[in-house]
Amino acid sequence: MKAKVHVTLKTGVLDPQGKAVQHALHSLGFAEVGEVRQGKFIELETGESDPTKARAAVEEMCKKLLANPVIENYSIEVEG
Amino acid sequence: MKAKVHVTLKTGVLDPQGKAVQHALHSLGFAEVGEVRQGKFIELETGESDPTKARAAVEEMCKKLLANPVIENYSIEVEG
Repeated sequence: MKAKVHVTLKTGVLDPQGKAVQHALHSLGFAEVGEVRQGKFIELETGESDPTKARAAVEEMCKKLLANPVIENYSIEVEG
Repeated sequence: MKAKVHVTLKTGVLDPQGKAVQHALHSLGFAEVGEVRQGKFIELETGESDPTKARAAVEEMCKKLLANPVIENYSIEVEG
């Protein structure tokens, strides 16, 4: 069973990478672009066949490795 | 008008970052985890009020800066 994970910085946490992208877009002529925030998108094969177990496993992976819960939020989608 | 962009490596392109995550998950005891692919997730304020124009602008940004069309795919969602 596959899972998709979005890891994004919490609101209020500075995002220098997003700022760099914003400045680059301005330099390229996209003057009207406002705030840019960059996060991670992870697709993985959980190896579980039960959706509840798969979600629990991915939740655990997020806490232990994929996200830093101090500064990042994560959301998990398990695919049928 | 906000837009969300997913940038992922094309199928067949090696993903060393994903492989590293996969190995780390194995080391942490998630032995059943299969392929892991890592991409980017970008949220931005386009500054456009028309959805068609917003999408066209983001498409242009993807081609010029956000994605490398040689090895990466991108998908755009414009939010109402």
